[in-house]
Amino acid sequence: MAAALTVSELARLVGGEVVREGSLRSITGVAALDTAGPGDVSFLGNDKYRPVFLTTQAGVVIVGRDETEGPETTALIAADNPSLAFAAAVGHFAAADVRFVAEIHPRATVSETARFNASAVRIHAGAVIMADVTIGDGTEIGPNAVIAEDAVIGENCRIMANVTIRERCVLGNRVIVQPGAVIGSDGYGYEFVNGRHQKIDQVGIVEIADDVEIGSNTTIDRARFGKTMVGEGTKIDNLVQIAHNVVIGKHCLIVSQTGISGSTQLGDYVVCGGQVGIAGHVKVGDKAVLGARTGVTASLAGGETYSGKPAQLLRDELKTQALLRRMPKLIDRVKALENARDQAAPGCD
Amino acid sequence: MAAALTVSELARLVGGEVVREGSLRSITGVAALDTAGPGDVSFLGNDKYRPVFLTTQAGVVIVGRDETEGPETTALIAADNPSLAFAAAVGHFAAADVRFVAEIHPRATVSETARFNASAVRIHAGAVIMADVTIGDGTEIGPNAVIAEDAVIGENCRIMANVTIRERCVLGNRVIVQPGAVIGSDGYGYEFVNGRHQKIDQVGIVEIADDVEIGSNTTIDRARFGKTMVGEGTKIDNLVQIAHNVVIGKHCLIVSQTGISGSTQLGDYVVCGGQVGIAGHVKVGDKAVLGARTGVTASLAGGETYSGKPAQLLRDELKTQALLRRMPKLIDRVKALENARDQAAPGCD
Amino acid sequence: MAAALTVSELARLVGGEVVREGSLRSITGVAALDTAGPGDVSFLGNDKYRPVFLTTQAGVVIVGRDETEGPETTALIAADNPSLAFAAAVGHFAAADVRFVAEIHPRATVSETARFNASAVRIHAGAVIMADVTIGDGTEIGPNAVIAEDAVIGENCRIMANVTIRERCVLGNRVIVQPGAVIGSDGYGYEFVNGRHQKIDQVGIVEIADDVEIGSNTTIDRARFGKTMVGEGTKIDNLVQIAHNVVIGKHCLIVSQTGISGSTQLGDYVVCGGQVGIAGHVKVGDKAVLGARTGVTASLAGGETYSGKPAQLLRDELKTQALLRRMPKLIDRVKALENARDQAAPGCD
Repeated sequence: MAAALTVSELARLVGGEVVREGSLRSITGVAALDTAGPGDVSFLGNDKYRPVFLTTQAGVVIVGRDETEGPETTALIAADNPSLAFAAAVGHFAAADVRFVAEIHPRATVSETARFNASAVRIHAGAVIMADVTIGDGTEIGPNAVIAEDAVIGENCRIMANVTIRERCVLGNRVIVQPGAVIGSDGYGYEFVNGRHQKIDQVGIVEIADDVEIGSNTTIDRARFGKTMVGEGTKIDNLVQIAHNVVIGKHCLIVSQTGISGSTQLGDYVVCGGQVGIAGHVKVGDKAVLGARTGVTASLAGGETYSGKPAQLLRDELKTQALLRRMPKLIDRVKALENARDQAAPGCD
Repeated sequence: MAAALTVSELARLVGGEVVREGSLRSITGVAALDTAGPGDVSFLGNDKYRPVFLTTQAGVVIVGRDETEGPETTALIAADNPSLAFAAAVGHFAAADVRFVAEIHPRATVSETARFNASAVRIHAGAVIMADVTIGDGTEIGPNAVIAEDAVIGENCRIMANVTIRERCVLGNRVIVQPGAVIGSDGYGYEFVNGRHQKIDQVGIVEIADDVEIGSNTTIDRARFGKTMVGEGTKIDNLVQIAHNVVIGKHCLIVSQTGISGSTQLGDYVVCGGQVGIAGHVKVGDKAVLGARTGVTASLAGGETYSGKPAQLLRDELKTQALLRRMPKLIDRVKALENARDQAAPGCD
Repeated sequence: MAAALTVSELARLVGGEVVREGSLRSITGVAALDTAGPGDVSFLGNDKYRPVFLTTQAGVVIVGRDETEGPETTALIAADNPSLAFAAAVGHFAAADVRFVAEIHPRATVSETARFNASAVRIHAGAVIMADVTIGDGTEIGPNAVIAEDAVIGENCRIMANVTIRERCVLGNRVIVQPGAVIGSDGYGYEFVNGRHQKIDQVGIVEIADDVEIGSNTTIDRARFGKTMVGEGTKIDNLVQIAHNVVIGKHCLIVSQTGISGSTQLGDYVVCGGQVGIAGHVKVGDKAVLGARTGVTASLAGGETYSGKPAQLLRDELKTQALLRRMPKLIDRVKALENARDQAAPGCD
């Protein structure tokens, strides 16, 4: 049980300033605006939730600078980034995740040739660590995860339950892999010979840089040869498909159910909304933003926001949608013109 | 081997009425219209299959009320819902699923602090049941499934092979989770700080109500704090993504490859066709029907059918498509008007 | 370490012809055009990479017939299919996958009633082989894979880590199943009774023919009754959904994140690009090609290329897109016509 805090103590903890004291004595938990009670801290991070904020029961709400609304009895703490400040409060109050404790579970199957410091890693029951695997200090391998031959896992990684990392793939430090993800499955490569699709060996690997997170049941294929690469700090959501020989830059966000086809390259700070699809062998420039479900069929310059299929600049996509909405009226106008013509030239045609 | 039935016995079993006796003696199995033989019962549940029905070899076909067609030698049983009636026949004839037998397999890894009635649950080989897990009577935990710390599984659930249920998640009674599904992975939450995406702890849980089914390799993320919720009786297909803090009502149908973004709320009896995408922080009202691949970017009223991206009423989407088909003719009409104008005013421009 | 080769030896190995000797002495590895050094062989298989080819450091490049460009110091070997020829070079030089060695790992859980030749199969640690399973010679069952009751796996199959194959499903010979795939999960079938979705038992199976490959985390549902079928030589990518009672022909290509709804039939040599969606109960003819993200709502004739949603012939889809681009001008033209009319008939209307 975390220690209760006063509003001032909480403000210090989250790096904010008290702008209204409210009526509460002590804060003992965190909650959303609509479910919070007088002992809870909550936050207003999205203006969509203002109506809920105006009637919240929360004892204290972390808000943006210049905020003065909300119930009189509710204390306000101002912060530059209320969501981030709230995260600090969550870190103090909320049920912590299970803590790291070094252990090689007797029900784990660990090759004698695997290299790791047994007093500095945690390998759960049912995990299978195959020959010549390397695991860095502070790393946790979840229950029933499989790490295949010669794979290298860095320090302080968290490989969760039922993950598969195939042979020779390399992960950096502080990489998080959510349950069920697959790293290093064969790329989808065939040649059509005599009426049959002949499999092309996929002998490359996947290389994941530091501070990457990979969502649950996401799949990242190994390169045909060479490497499929995910750059430092990139965060990949659930059920994403990354094909063979794809190269993703640093600090990208790849939202759920996006698919990136073979040999495509993304620059740094690229954002893919949900269900985006990107064709093979194209490049997407630094800081490009692809709205949800954008379909990319050709290379795109960086620094712009795109939408639609085929992808176009968001403003052009919005124009296209507006034009479609004007079509019924346009048809009426053409009809009126035809009527005028027909009346002007009776008997003709 | 199930007992053979006469047409009358079968009609009683499925709650239907014999409308034609046909020529068969006894029914010994079930099959589709196109593969059924004289000893099989089949059904006509979709008028698309009428041509197959008219030439079926089935001994008996379960049909809707007022049906009189089909081969003379084929018996007909009329039922209000032929598909449902047929399901009863399948229940009688078809190879049954493996039956529940209580057992804690010696190759399962079960924490000493897990709570369950060892004579009333089945835990398969390779399953990992971690500390302080609770499992209700009649529940089966499949091979290599992982149930993490403090999770609660209700009664008569079927958690299949290679499923992951992360810490503290709560499942009701009679919940079915198909293989490879992940419940309780971290929500996709980051704050952008100094050029890097900083992970926001996801300390909430997932709560699944009674009678929910979750498809294979589907992913449901835990809440940032509080709960991601799936309401009673809702059925979720394969490869669906449910993000953190989503709230899904009762008796919804969420078809394969649909993605629902963070904090979005669905009412009761909502239907999402395949590959639907729903943005974050929106509400979809009770009994809304989203056609396959609808892209929802704003809240939608209940009781209507939607389609397209951005989602619009189905009838408007169909109008838009019809308008597009009229465009070539429209261009011709404008051309004709221009010709008429040019002829009416020769020399003018 | 594979033996170094001369250009002539390499040409013989890959079935090509030396068209330029270049300046290298011996080839010791394989690499992509942009990372290759003087000791590496690379290939030019897609004209998009011509600019890279023109400045490559590769010692030798496998090219198409009639190719004469590239750096003077780079040797050229001509082949009918450079990609396929290169695959032979990869087979010679690249790190081989782990070789098959028969073994029943002591940490595998194998039912006494399972049928296989223990000196001819490999079953990895953590795999669970349930009652009455049959496994052919030369087949490998990966770590933590689960093969349920009565399933039949043919010869020389490779079932990778964390795969689930449910009861009674049947796989042919030389079938490859990438990690995390699920074969035989319950079809998504319910009847709506008294305000609730009542589950319809799914008592059929999945039958996979010879030489099929199934991608990581792909899901294939068992039939309601009868069989869901995948034909010989068909290759399925990652995260694909195949619903119950689907029948897929021979030698099809089904690219990532495609979804095929219940009871739909694909002919032979059908190609589905990424993120395609196909409605239930339709037929797609032999050799139909569905471009990425095509949405199929009705049956389609074979031999054609389709695109868009609803699917239309690719040429029609391209026309529609061109028409949309002409709309702004069309609106201007109508405006001009209206101006002309208004001037011709001043005072009217």
